Amino acid sequence: MKISPFQKRLIALQESLTGKFPDTVWIIQPENRRYLSGFRAADTQINESSGSLLMNRKKALLITDSRYTTEACQEAKAFDVITLKRDILEELPRLLARLKTKTLGFEEDYLTCGLHKRLLKALKGLSRPIRLAPLHKVIENRREIKDPSEIRSMETSAKKMSGVLSGVIAGLRPGLTEMEIARHIEQSAYEAGAEDMAFPPIVASGPNGALPHAVPTNRKIRPKEPIILDVGLKVDGYCCDMTRTVFLDTPGPKFRKIYRTVRTAQLSALANIKPGMMSTEPDSVARGIIKEAGFGDYFGHSLGHGVGLATHEGPRLGPRKPARLRDFRSCSADV
Amino acid sequence: MKISPFQKRLIALQESLTGKFPDTVWIIQPENRRYLSGFRAADTQINESSGSLLMNRKKALLITDSRYTTEACQEAKAFDVITLKRDILEELPRLLARLKTKTLGFEEDYLTCGLHKRLLKALKGLSRPIRLAPLHKVIENRREIKDPSEIRSMETSAKKMSGVLSGVIAGLRPGLTEMEIARHIEQSAYEAGAEDMAFPPIVASGPNGALPHAVPTNRKIRPKEPIILDVGLKVDGYCCDMTRTVFLDTPGPKFRKIYRTVRTAQLSALANIKPGMMSTEPDSVARGIIKEAGFGDYFGHSLGHGVGLATHEGPRLGPRKPARLRDFRSCSADV
Repeated sequence: MKISPFQKRLIALQESLTGKFPDTVWIIQPENRRYLSGFRAADTQINESSGSLLMNRKKALLITDSRYTTEACQEAKAFDVITLKRDILEELPRLLARLKTKTLGFEEDYLTCGLHKRLLKALKGLSRPIRLAPLHKVIENRREIKDPSEIRSMETSAKKMSGVLSGVIAGLRPGLTEMEIARHIEQSAYEAGAEDMAFPPIVASGPNGALPHAVPTNRKIRPKEPIILDVGLKVDGYCCDMTRTVFLDTPGPKFRKIYRTVRTAQLSALANIKPGMMSTEPDSVARGIIKEAGFGDYFGHSLGHGVGLATHEGPRLGPRKPARLRDFRSCSADV
Repeated sequence: MKISPFQKRLIALQESLTGKFPDTVWIIQPENRRYLSGFRAADTQINESSGSLLMNRKKALLITDSRYTTEACQEAKAFDVITLKRDILEELPRLLARLKTKTLGFEEDYLTCGLHKRLLKALKGLSRPIRLAPLHKVIENRREIKDPSEIRSMETSAKKMSGVLSGVIAGLRPGLTEMEIARHIEQSAYEAGAEDMAFPPIVASGPNGALPHAVPTNRKIRPKEPIILDVGLKVDGYCCDMTRTVFLDTPGPKFRKIYRTVRTAQLSALANIKPGMMSTEPDSVARGIIKEAGFGDYFGHSLGHGVGLATHEGPRLGPRKPARLRDFRSCSADV
């Protein structure tokens, strides 16, 4: 039987649960959860989980409630699905006893202080004591290196978005509002088979283009102004994130210079980037060109970021927090 | 000068920062942030904040970065907007020194363990030591009691959604897919002036109707099957959350019985609910009727929940966690 990418990832994680690592890990972060299990549910709100994973070297449980049991069984084939009737913290000690857990790893960048406090309380006074061990980006680091199935999904995602943008841009006319254009992008994305938008489309015209996270307004687009489209959609959970700057007519010399500067900076960074490099280097290439052209003060953003099950994920390319860019060919079995 | 609802809420919070409470509070949860300041930005991802609030009895700071400065200044009129160039944890000690903070309250149900660890580290070894105090639902409890401006927004939100649903339901025909209907709902909601959807529309037909959080599929709707529409939109940030169960023709006796049971349970709970009651009582009224009719095993959900800046918020009406339902007329100055 062919094993799925999800099973491969699960097995790779399970094999790592030895030595300095905890014997059991509890995964609640929605993208990490989907990455390991295939369970597609989103969390409706930050304080409302649709499920979590509990794994040791031998066992893999998906813990959810009656709202999601059917989907969980269909989607997370490598997991035993447990349907809870009570709060997870009331059931966790029993489940951990079943797994003979000694040390439980939890995602320190997702678990809240409040839940951590309740977890400590729930584990207090057990006959077999259980220690807690914070995990820092353990699954996120694995997610940075994509496997072939992920690359296919990302390519499909980007191709669909690019096609949608070409169509929408061809139809731009003075008098359309930012909001109408945003709605048109969404509608075309869904018609093209997007599972969801990666984030609400940003359509920002004229002065609004200076707001990097502008919310589309009723402003009508006009000639002689830049229009920024910053959009993304999801295919199989995988996001794309792309920006286009368009003019309804020929831009004046100032905008031509700005556009050319940014484009040169982008292409130079792309031409220079390679595995093994520090994550600050491509940023520095791009930043140098923008500074040189006299626009250094306006480059508040960092250069770029990875993309995957989240719109923004590692590796990050910016002027701070240098980290080595890994070569996926030298990465271990879970790739 | 007339003071805005945001200023009223800020003042009420500031007045409470005395006695057993911390002298300064740090608010990072997006709905709490909007509730107190009017700053509309959403967080693009859980690990990416678009800003936070730092308040003591005298001062109110909105801390953001260059992506959001313009909006923050326009929207959060009662706050001094601080634009950071570095990570907030590098700047926080300086800002807290400015506020002469001794004890800093943080939202324990939102701050992650990882951020808490970094915060502790950032505050270590200061010449004026600062203690940390977890806040549990301090702002969320205030949000449960709505002021007149909030009630107006919620009414508008519900009226728009109800109008959209009437139009969509009138247009339902066999052969439309769940996804097409979901897209139609979104489009009509935006045309009706929704700021955003409260959550992605749920359209679930036939057997999919048994999945409470179904994602719309390509399944075509048919006669003789229930179609569940569970939808919400936002106006001024305020959500509505409503469900309709429709049939394309006359339902058979079994579905008529189920529908009538649920409807009777809902109306009885509504007729009985009043301030001062325990939150378990309306659930018990509804649950009794559903059990009586022989469907008790299929009522896995709790009865209901509050709605506001979040789709799901307090008070909760369910069989567990009894809490007294407050009377807004007896509540303090911040109402």
